[in-house]
Amino acid sequence: MPDPVTSSGKPLLRALAGETLPRPPFWLMRQAGRYLPEYRALRAKAGSFLELCYTPALAAEVTLQPIRRFGMDGAILFSDILVVPHALGQELDYVEGEGPRLDPVCDRGALGRLSAAGVDTILAPVYETVARVRSALPPETALIGFAGAPWTVATYMVEGGGSKDFAAAKRFAYGDPDGFQGLVDLLVETTVLYLRRQIDAGAEAVKLFDSWAGVLPEAEFRRWVIAPTARIVAALKRSHPAVPVIGFPRGAGHLYEPYLADTGVDALGVDTALPLSVAKSLQRRRPVEGNLDPVALLVGGEALQRSALEILEALADGPFVFNLGHGVLQGTPPEHVAELAALIRGWPGHTG
Amino acid sequence: MPDPVTSSGKPLLRALAGETLPRPPFWLMRQAGRYLPEYRALRAKAGSFLELCYTPALAAEVTLQPIRRFGMDGAILFSDILVVPHALGQELDYVEGEGPRLDPVCDRGALGRLSAAGVDTILAPVYETVARVRSALPPETALIGFAGAPWTVATYMVEGGGSKDFAAAKRFAYGDPDGFQGLVDLLVETTVLYLRRQIDAGAEAVKLFDSWAGVLPEAEFRRWVIAPTARIVAALKRSHPAVPVIGFPRGAGHLYEPYLADTGVDALGVDTALPLSVAKSLQRRRPVEGNLDPVALLVGGEALQRSALEILEALADGPFVFNLGHGVLQGTPPEHVAELAALIRGWPGHTG
Repeated sequence: MPDPVTSSGKPLLRALAGETLPRPPFWLMRQAGRYLPEYRALRAKAGSFLELCYTPALAAEVTLQPIRRFGMDGAILFSDILVVPHALGQELDYVEGEGPRLDPVCDRGALGRLSAAGVDTILAPVYETVARVRSALPPETALIGFAGAPWTVATYMVEGGGSKDFAAAKRFAYGDPDGFQGLVDLLVETTVLYLRRQIDAGAEAVKLFDSWAGVLPEAEFRRWVIAPTARIVAALKRSHPAVPVIGFPRGAGHLYEPYLADTGVDALGVDTALPLSVAKSLQRRRPVEGNLDPVALLVGGEALQRSALEILEALADGPFVFNLGHGVLQGTPPEHVAELAALIRGWPGHTG
Repeated sequence: MPDPVTSSGKPLLRALAGETLPRPPFWLMRQAGRYLPEYRALRAKAGSFLELCYTPALAAEVTLQPIRRFGMDGAILFSDILVVPHALGQELDYVEGEGPRLDPVCDRGALGRLSAAGVDTILAPVYETVARVRSALPPETALIGFAGAPWTVATYMVEGGGSKDFAAAKRFAYGDPDGFQGLVDLLVETTVLYLRRQIDAGAEAVKLFDSWAGVLPEAEFRRWVIAPTARIVAALKRSHPAVPVIGFPRGAGHLYEPYLADTGVDALGVDTALPLSVAKSLQRRRPVEGNLDPVALLVGGEALQRSALEILEALADGPFVFNLGHGVLQGTPPEHVAELAALIRGWPGHTG
């Protein structure tokens, strides 16, 4: 008997279109990566992390690895949100165990070092990766493209890497809002181009990652998270009205609601800390995606079962995509991902 | 003419008791510290950071420095939340520019290394600091004691320092909840003792810092944030019913509400990301304290004025203590603190 979920159209796209499926589709943020031995083997043979992102044969292979093992309903392009600043001319390095390092763009004066002229050429290999993955995916699996949202990408560009307090990025944004607006405008424009090309190459849905949305006060959240996201969504809707956009303003708390109301995203990624009752009320307006704690997946056993079931009970009776609330952690045993996949596929128990 | 705010009782204590004052009292988290040249001068002469915390003459002097300069309505004991694990026998070091390093307590087995036996002796200098500060403070200035809340202190103890994803702490908590409960129980007990002694020595209010409350899913937040806090508050209310307890579950978002309802705290510290409309609705139930973005203070000028006025307009017509949403940042110019103090003292403009 065919799985009823996959019998008509790709389940992930049906859920993102607002349909409630008998069992929710699933994929996991950072489902391709270091926790998989086949990724580590391939990574050891590749050059730098950035070369891996820019080598279509390898990036496509990495994208497909978790699909072969676990059969997620969605494959997410293997890449990094920082290829956009890199394509804009910012120097970028990944330091093993430390994360990304960029030559910081601290103020308005430094913006002159950036240029959109080379973006399409530099990012061409990413589009090629998308095309390769699309042609290799099983027919029921949807391909998700993505980009970092402007605020989050800007924090890395200004801080020169990750940050604890985002003092440099906020300092620029609060102290010279017009200058910072120039950076955000450039990112809006580039992100629209980048996502359009991904869609043209085969991406069937796109996700905007705003990982550091949760550190801004409301007024700044509206200006640097909601407004740029709304512009990107509007532009994508003009060119590609049928492609769903998932917005993920991680940690937005009470500001998830205005984000949903004012950005135009088709679906909402919710983080681990968002109470399920709140996710449920957001789901009445738009499909939601989330929000298992990656540490529950790392720990496995009863903690995983309990947390995953709690989420399924709260959200699977509406339009829902099961996902984590943040990316898969490095030390996660692949068997735990298999357990989670089995649990979701067996949902709800009585029809299994 | 005397300042009407200070004409009857200490303004900070009146606000924490639920009174709405003509202009709100204020103090700033991390108001004593590295941004002050007099702190840096004293620090250069002291030994390690921990020695500074344990030397009453110096710690008292540091506590008083910002009061002399800016006349805040509250002085907060200069110490660190990690003196509690240190007093429990955990090795602790502060690495310049990197933050604290502890010998991690990763699992139930490691709990045997901890003991409450030495706590009172090791922390005696802290109580002595409290007594010294109390006797040196201007009569209108209230003295605030503090401790880290059990979840937050436990994250440092288990991670061995700061963390990005709290994977080790959550792994312990999710994977062996009974073992982790043992650690939290020890912290509840020790924190009650520690805060009682601070109050006996002269602290007139206490604040519980739960800086990492915001990383937990709701069920875990209830178990590791709300429940231990409720036990601490109940114990303090038995011994010292008149001393207000300020709870600060930073980043709690929608969970501020159950925190307020279920912990018994007298007042609520709110972080920068909490919308003012939400802070306002919480204020209908209990006094609130917050929530200026420390980066607005760092930047100064228009960004500072605008953000501070927005907060005053939203919250100063109810029981309110003006504070930051997180600690003063290192590079903050002291003149910006003076500007902020003048702005609050001048509030509301038409009676100034």
